[in-house]
Amino acid sequence: MPLKVVIIGGGSSYTPEIIEGFILRHHSFPVDEVVLVDIEDGKEKLEVVGQLAQRMIDKSNVKITLRWTLDRKEALRGADFVSTQIRVGGLEARALDERIPLKHGFIGQETNGAGGMFKAFRTIPVLLELADEMTELCPNAWLINFTNPAGIVTEALLKHSKHQKVIGVCNIPFNMRNSVAEILHAPVEHVSIEFIGLNHFIFGRQVLVNGVDRTADVLAALRQGNDYSPANIVGLGWSESFLNSIKMLPNPYHQYYFQTRDVLAKDLQAYEENGTRAEVVQEVERRLFEQYRDVSLDVKPKELEQRGGAYYSDAACNLMDSLYNDRGDIQTVNTLNQGTIRDLPEDAVIEVNAVITKAGPRPLSIGSLPLHLRGLITNLKTFEQLTIQAAISGKYEDAYLAALMNPLIQDEKRIDALLEELFRAHHLYLPQFQLKEVLS
Amino acid sequence: MPLKVVIIGGGSSYTPEIIEGFILRHHSFPVDEVVLVDIEDGKEKLEVVGQLAQRMIDKSNVKITLRWTLDRKEALRGADFVSTQIRVGGLEARALDERIPLKHGFIGQETNGAGGMFKAFRTIPVLLELADEMTELCPNAWLINFTNPAGIVTEALLKHSKHQKVIGVCNIPFNMRNSVAEILHAPVEHVSIEFIGLNHFIFGRQVLVNGVDRTADVLAALRQGNDYSPANIVGLGWSESFLNSIKMLPNPYHQYYFQTRDVLAKDLQAYEENGTRAEVVQEVERRLFEQYRDVSLDVKPKELEQRGGAYYSDAACNLMDSLYNDRGDIQTVNTLNQGTIRDLPEDAVIEVNAVITKAGPRPLSIGSLPLHLRGLITNLKTFEQLTIQAAISGKYEDAYLAALMNPLIQDEKRIDALLEELFRAHHLYLPQFQLKEVLS
Amino acid sequence: MPLKVVIIGGGSSYTPEIIEGFILRHHSFPVDEVVLVDIEDGKEKLEVVGQLAQRMIDKSNVKITLRWTLDRKEALRGADFVSTQIRVGGLEARALDERIPLKHGFIGQETNGAGGMFKAFRTIPVLLELADEMTELCPNAWLINFTNPAGIVTEALLKHSKHQKVIGVCNIPFNMRNSVAEILHAPVEHVSIEFIGLNHFIFGRQVLVNGVDRTADVLAALRQGNDYSPANIVGLGWSESFLNSIKMLPNPYHQYYFQTRDVLAKDLQAYEENGTRAEVVQEVERRLFEQYRDVSLDVKPKELEQRGGAYYSDAACNLMDSLYNDRGDIQTVNTLNQGTIRDLPEDAVIEVNAVITKAGPRPLSIGSLPLHLRGLITNLKTFEQLTIQAAISGKYEDAYLAALMNPLIQDEKRIDALLEELFRAHHLYLPQFQLKEVLS
Amino acid sequence: MPLKVVIIGGGSSYTPEIIEGFILRHHSFPVDEVVLVDIEDGKEKLEVVGQLAQRMIDKSNVKITLRWTLDRKEALRGADFVSTQIRVGGLEARALDERIPLKHGFIGQETNGAGGMFKAFRTIPVLLELADEMTELCPNAWLINFTNPAGIVTEALLKHSKHQKVIGVCNIPFNMRNSVAEILHAPVEHVSIEFIGLNHFIFGRQVLVNGVDRTADVLAALRQGNDYSPANIVGLGWSESFLNSIKMLPNPYHQYYFQTRDVLAKDLQAYEENGTRAEVVQEVERRLFEQYRDVSLDVKPKELEQRGGAYYSDAACNLMDSLYNDRGDIQTVNTLNQGTIRDLPEDAVIEVNAVITKAGPRPLSIGSLPLHLRGLITNLKTFEQLTIQAAISGKYEDAYLAALMNPLIQDEKRIDALLEELFRAHHLYLPQFQLKEVLS
Repeated sequence: MPLKVVIIGGGSSYTPEIIEGFILRHHSFPVDEVVLVDIEDGKEKLEVVGQLAQRMIDKSNVKITLRWTLDRKEALRGADFVSTQIRVGGLEARALDERIPLKHGFIGQETNGAGGMFKAFRTIPVLLELADEMTELCPNAWLINFTNPAGIVTEALLKHSKHQKVIGVCNIPFNMRNSVAEILHAPVEHVSIEFIGLNHFIFGRQVLVNGVDRTADVLAALRQGNDYSPANIVGLGWSESFLNSIKMLPNPYHQYYFQTRDVLAKDLQAYEENGTRAEVVQEVERRLFEQYRDVSLDVKPKELEQRGGAYYSDAACNLMDSLYNDRGDIQTVNTLNQGTIRDLPEDAVIEVNAVITKAGPRPLSIGSLPLHLRGLITNLKTFEQLTIQAAISGKYEDAYLAALMNPLIQDEKRIDALLEELFRAHHLYLPQFQLKEVLS
Repeated sequence: MPLKVVIIGGGSSYTPEIIEGFILRHHSFPVDEVVLVDIEDGKEKLEVVGQLAQRMIDKSNVKITLRWTLDRKEALRGADFVSTQIRVGGLEARALDERIPLKHGFIGQETNGAGGMFKAFRTIPVLLELADEMTELCPNAWLINFTNPAGIVTEALLKHSKHQKVIGVCNIPFNMRNSVAEILHAPVEHVSIEFIGLNHFIFGRQVLVNGVDRTADVLAALRQGNDYSPANIVGLGWSESFLNSIKMLPNPYHQYYFQTRDVLAKDLQAYEENGTRAEVVQEVERRLFEQYRDVSLDVKPKELEQRGGAYYSDAACNLMDSLYNDRGDIQTVNTLNQGTIRDLPEDAVIEVNAVITKAGPRPLSIGSLPLHLRGLITNLKTFEQLTIQAAISGKYEDAYLAALMNPLIQDEKRIDALLEELFRAHHLYLPQFQLKEVLS
Repeated sequence: MPLKVVIIGGGSSYTPEIIEGFILRHHSFPVDEVVLVDIEDGKEKLEVVGQLAQRMIDKSNVKITLRWTLDRKEALRGADFVSTQIRVGGLEARALDERIPLKHGFIGQETNGAGGMFKAFRTIPVLLELADEMTELCPNAWLINFTNPAGIVTEALLKHSKHQKVIGVCNIPFNMRNSVAEILHAPVEHVSIEFIGLNHFIFGRQVLVNGVDRTADVLAALRQGNDYSPANIVGLGWSESFLNSIKMLPNPYHQYYFQTRDVLAKDLQAYEENGTRAEVVQEVERRLFEQYRDVSLDVKPKELEQRGGAYYSDAACNLMDSLYNDRGDIQTVNTLNQGTIRDLPEDAVIEVNAVITKAGPRPLSIGSLPLHLRGLITNLKTFEQLTIQAAISGKYEDAYLAALMNPLIQDEKRIDALLEELFRAHHLYLPQFQLKEVLS
Repeated sequence: MPLKVVIIGGGSSYTPEIIEGFILRHHSFPVDEVVLVDIEDGKEKLEVVGQLAQRMIDKSNVKITLRWTLDRKEALRGADFVSTQIRVGGLEARALDERIPLKHGFIGQETNGAGGMFKAFRTIPVLLELADEMTELCPNAWLINFTNPAGIVTEALLKHSKHQKVIGVCNIPFNMRNSVAEILHAPVEHVSIEFIGLNHFIFGRQVLVNGVDRTADVLAALRQGNDYSPANIVGLGWSESFLNSIKMLPNPYHQYYFQTRDVLAKDLQAYEENGTRAEVVQEVERRLFEQYRDVSLDVKPKELEQRGGAYYSDAACNLMDSLYNDRGDIQTVNTLNQGTIRDLPEDAVIEVNAVITKAGPRPLSIGSLPLHLRGLITNLKTFEQLTIQAAISGKYEDAYLAALMNPLIQDEKRIDALLEELFRAHHLYLPQFQLKEVLS
C-alpha cells in the first residue's frame, strides 16, 4: 500500500519545511503521495506553495507524487498521516488576538491568555469536523496536530471526537533539547530532557547526557545569560534566585506567567513601535511568498527560519517516521495523561516524553508533580479544560469562567469588556456561540 | 475536674469579647477558670484587659475564677482549652506587612500575599513552641487557633508538632452565615451553607434553609449589591457575569484574587489618605484601651465591633461548647482534609463544615472540587504548603518559591527586592532564617 | 400537602413492623397516607397484610389512611417516600440461590457469593423500572431501598437511573450499635460507631460513648464470646488473634470471608438437617401468615422477630423522619462515596455514617482506608461493580468476570457449571441475559 | 575503571548460567571482574561452582578475572553491579514452606501464600544488611535482585534502605515473551507485551508484533491448549470462558489464585508421590553438582534448564547491559510505581515495562487498572505491604494480618496453628520476631 500524507493548511508558508523533511527522510519514511489541502480563501497561496513543493521534489529525485486541492474529503481517503497547520481566520485573526487584550491591559499572545483562548474557540470546531471526516475516510490514519494552542486542541479532539489516533506536537521541547545540546557541546542524540507539564508550560526536570545528570550545568549556563527562545519570543533572562529555587529548566513561554508585568510593558512598547507580532509576520510572509513565486527557487529559502517555527518540520517528520517504523525512540508529544501525572485527570492531555511505537505514544511515568509546580500546572490545566468546555457548549458563562481562571486575565471586573470586544471581532468564526444578549 | 481555659495573647483588645462569650454561655459551657497570658511587652495591656474582664465577671454573677500572668507554662498546666489570639511583632509588624508590598507594587494584606506569608513565618515557630508545651503540660487540651493566616498556621501545627488536638477558626464563615440569614430573613440556626475551600478562600456552594435550597436567592441579592464584608475589608461588589458563572457565594477575601488591580488601586489610595489598615487599627486600639482603663466600664464596649473581628468570640465559644458537650452540631473549622476534598493532599488543612464531637471535628465529605475551582484552590494550597516549608526550613530559596507561587506576587524579577526588604524589616522575629548572604 | 408513603412489596410479612413504626412515630413523622403495593402473584398475601395493618392503625387511633393495590403507577403519584422490600422470584428463588452454590462446593447465601450476585441480577432491572416511574410520577420522593444486596442495588440505581434521590438501608449497623450499647450498658443514643466499608462488609473502627473511645472494651467483650449476629446468621465467634490484629469490630457477615471453610461446612450440615435458610423461612412465613389471618390480631406479633430483619423498621422510620424533618442526626446509610473513602471510586456506593438532612445524606469523611482493609474492600467493590455491569449488559462474559472476582467463588474451572445451573434456574427473571449459547 | 560484578549467593547451581551470559555478551558488556560470594555453609558448593566458572572463562578466551570468597564486604568494594540469588535457609527451608501449609490445608509454594510470606520474612533482613553495606562500599552500584518473592523483597529494600539503586527481576515476563514469540512464529525482538500487575501476578494486556496487535491470536492459541509454564509449575490450562472474559494473557502463577482447589489437590498428590518441589529440586541439584565437579566440564550443562530458572541469566545480563550502555530499550522489571498504576500507592513496587537508561528504569505509564483486575491486584499489593510491615516490625499481629489478607490463606480460625508451626520451623532465620508468647 502506498504511504500517503495529507497536509491540512497546505498553503501555509511552512509547507516547504515539511516537504524538505519528507525528501531528506525518504530512505526511512518512504512517502509515496503528498496532498496539500487548503480552503477557498487560501487558493492562490496553495497554488504558489504547491508549485514550489513540486520543484523541490523534482530537484531531489525522490519518488513522491504531489497534489494540491480544495476538496478535503477527497484528499483524506486512504491517508496514513494527516498533518494540520491551519490558522482559522488567518493572521488577521491573530492580530486581533494580540491587539485587543493589550488594549484592555492584558497580555495579547496567540497561545496564552485571552488570545490563546479565542484561537482555541475558533480552531476546535474546525478540527472536530476534520476528525469526523477522518473517522469515515481514513480511520487508521494518525492526525498530527500542530495547530496552537496544541495542548488544548489535542485534548478537545481526544475528548470530543471518535477519532482517537491524535497526537499534538510543538517545537518547544525539540528546540530546548537542541539548545541544551549546544550549551553542553554534546551531540543532540545523546541528550535527553525529562519534561513535565503542559504544552507551553513544560519544565525540564532533568538533563541527561548519555545517562549522566547535567542539569546543574545547564542551569549554570542559563544563569550566565544563555537563552533558548524561539524567533517569536524575546527572552528577558531569568534571575539567579528563580533558577536556584525552581531547579529546573524553564521554557520560553514561562515569561508570560512569571514576568507578566515586564512582558506586558515589553509587548506594549513593541506594539507601538512595530504593531503586533501578527503584523510583523504578515510582512515576513509577504516577502516569503514573493520568493516562493520565483520559478527558479527549488529549495526551502533561508528566510523561512525567521518565522518562529524552527524544527517544526523535524518534529513532525521524526514523529511520523517513528510511528510508521515502530521505532520505539523517545519523543516529546501531547497525548493523554492516563496516569502519567498523578495530580491531573486521566483524560487530560499533557506534554510528555513518550516511547513512540506503531501503536502510538507510550508516556513515561512521572508520578506526583513536585510541590512547587503542582499549583500552577493544575491551574493552567483547569483553564484549558474550561476553554474546551466553552468551545463546545458555546455558552458565554463558560467563556467567562475560562477567562476568570486564566492567571493572565482573572480580573473579574474587566472580563466582560474584553470578551465582548473579542467575540465581536471573531464572531464569524465562532458560530457555536449564541451571543445575541451579550453583544446587543 | 474544674474546666479551665487559657487565652494566649490575653492582653488583646478582643479579650472582652470572649469573656462576654464565657459569661453568656456559662449554663452550657461552665468555665471554672480563665487564665489570660501575654508576653513581657504586653504586660501593661494585659493588666488593663485583665481588670476589665474581672469587672465584667463580677457584674455577671457567674462563678469564673480569672487570673492573668506572663508565665505561660504555669498557666497551661491542666488546661482543657487553649485559645490563641497572638500577633507576633504587634501592629507595627502588621503595618510593615501592609506597607512594604504596596511599595513594590503588590497588594499588602496581613493574611494574603507577601504580608500573610511573613505573618506565617513569624507566627509558626512561636505556636510550635506553644504546642510542644501543651504536649507536656496539658496533653488533652484543645488548641483553638485564631491567629492568622489561620489555615496555614493550623496546618503547620498539625504537620510539625506532636500535639494533634488543634482546630483553626475564622469568623468569615460565621459572618457569611449570619449575613445570609439576614438577606433571607431567616433565623440563622435554620441556615446552613456548604463551604468548600481554604481559609480566606472558601466558596459557599449551597445555601439551605431548613433543607431547602436558597442559593439562587442569595446570589440574586448579591447581584443587587448586597454585601457581607467584615469591617476590615471594603467590598467592591461582584459583577453579574461573575456571579452567573461561578454560581456560588464568594467570600470577601476573594477580591484580592479576582479584583487584584482594583484592590491594589483602592489600597494605594487608602494608604495615601489614612496610612495602612494597621495604622487605622492602632488608633482604634488606642481609643479602646482608653475606655478599658475606665474603671466604671464593666461590659464589652460597642466600639470593639469596628475592629473587624465580629463573631470571633461566638465562633470560639460555640466550638468549645460543642467539643465539651459532644454536641454533634455542624460548624465550619480549619482541620485536616483526610479525604474530604479529593484534589488536595490528605494532610492539608481545609476550611470545612464538620460535625463537632468530643473526639474532634468530623468533616462532611466533599469529593472532587468543581472544575472551575480546582485550579485556584490547588494553587493557593501549594502556596500555603511552600510557606510552611519555608517557615520550617528557614531557607531563602523556599521563601522565594512560596512568593513565586503566590498568585498575588509571582513576579520573578521583583521578588528578590520585595523579600529583602521584608526580611530586613522583620528579622528580629525570624530567627529560623539564615539570611546573611541575602541581606549583606 | 399530605405526607404519603408507598411500600413496594407491601404484602411482605415485614409490613406490620413498618406500620408499627409509623404509628409510634406519628407525632414527629405524621404520615397521612400509606399505600401497600404488590404484584399479581402476591395478591392474596397483600390482602391479608393489608387487613392486619388496617386493624393495627384502627387500634392506634392515629390518623393514617391505608390502601393496598396492584397498580403501582397509580400508587406512586404524589408520593413523598417509597420504600422497597421486594424479593424478585420470592423465597423459591432464594432457596435456589442457597442450594445451587452449595451443590457446587460454594457458599450459598442470599446476599454474598453467587446467590447475592443472582439476586442482584434479578432485582436491578425491576428497581430501575420503579425508579423510572418515580422520575415521572413522584420526582421529589425519596426511594428508601431495603432490597438486598442493598449496596449493589443502590449503586445500580444511582448509576443507571435518572432518579437520584435513593438511599440504601441495612439493619446490620443499626443492630451492631444496639448490641454494643447493651455490651457497654450505655443508652444507645449515647453510642456512636464509626463504620467503614461496604454493605455487609463494614467494620466498626471506633466506638464512642458520649465522645469517649470505648473500642477496646467492646473488643474485650467480643473476645469473651459476646456476639451480635442477627437471627439469620449463626455466629462462630472470633479468635483472639483476629480481634487483636484487626482492632476493629467485625460484622456478622464477615464470617463468609474470614471463616469460609467452616461456614461452608456449617451450611452444608444445616442444609442436610433443615434444608436451606429459605426453606426455614418459608415455614416461619407460613406460621406468620396464619397468625396474620386471625382477625383478632391487631398488633405486630412477637414471632416476626425470628425473621432476621430486626430493627429494619426502626432503621427505615428513623431515616424517613430525619429526611422529612431536616434533623441533622447521624445515621448509617448506603450512599454515594463521592470522596469519603479515598481508595474507592467517587461513584461507588458505600455504607457510611452520614448527617441526614432534608437535602439528603452528607457522609462524614473517612480518607484512606487502613492498609489492612484496603485490599479486601477494594476487591469486594470490584465484584459489586462487575455484578452491576453484568446485570445491565446481560452478557455472560460479564457475569463470569463478576463470579471470578468474587472471593467466595473465584474458581476458574467451576464457574461455568455453577453459572449454567443458576441461569437455568432463574431464567424467567433474567430477561436481560441472552443465554442461548450458554444454556443450549 | 574496570567493570566489576559481584554475585551474592555465588555458590548457587545457577551461577554457570550467568557466567555464560557474561561470556556471550562480553563485546557489549565487557565485565572485567566477577566475584562470587557465599556464606560459610555454602563454602564447598562455592568452591565447586567457582572452579567450573573458571574453566568456562578459560575456554571462552574472554578477559574476565574471577574470584570467589566468603568475605562479602571485601567483595563489594568498588562493585558496579551486585546480583543476588540467595536462599536464606536453603532448600531445607523451602521444603518447610511447601510442606507445612499443605498440612494445614493451604497451598504451599515458595513465592505465594504462607510459604512466600515466610520466605520474605527470612530474606528481607538479610538483604537490608547487604543494601546497607552497598551504601557504604559501592554506593553507585546497582543491586539486581532475583531473590523471591522478588516484588516484595524489592519493595522492602526501596522502602527501608538508603540504597535506592535496586531493581527486581523475574524470568516470568521474559519467558512469556519468548513463548508468545514461538506461538506467533515471530522473532522475539519483534514482540512486545504490555504487562500490568505485580511480580507473579502480571497480566499481558496487549501483544504487539512490530506494533500490530496480536493479542487475540495468542488467546486463541491458549484456548487450544498452548501453555508457557516454567519447569517448576505444571499448568492446568485455562477455560474458554476465563480467556474470553479476562481478555488478557494470564501468567503461570495465576493458577494459585484462580484454580486454588485444583492446584491444592494436584500439589497434595504430587507431594504424596514425590515429596515437595524442594525435595525434587534437591535431587536435581545433587546431580548437577556431581557434573559440576567433573573437571572436564567447561560449559553450562543442559540439565540446568530443568531447574525452572530458564532465562534468568538472559534477564539479568540484558538488564545490566542496558543500564551500563544507557541503551533505552524496554524491559520488564520490578521498580517503584510512582504514578504508573493509578490505583496503587506511589511507593509500591510493581512489575512493569520500563525504558532502561543509565539513570535507571523509566516505567511506561499505565493509568487506572481495568475494573476486573482492580480488586485482586490491590488485594495482593495489600498482602505484600502487610508482609513487609511484619518482616520489619517482627510483630506476631502484623504477621497474622498479612496471612489474613492473603487470598490463599484468609482463614481466621486456622491461621494461628499455621503460623505457629512455620515460626517454630524457621525461628533460627527470624531473629526479628519476638515470639516467646506465641510459641510457648
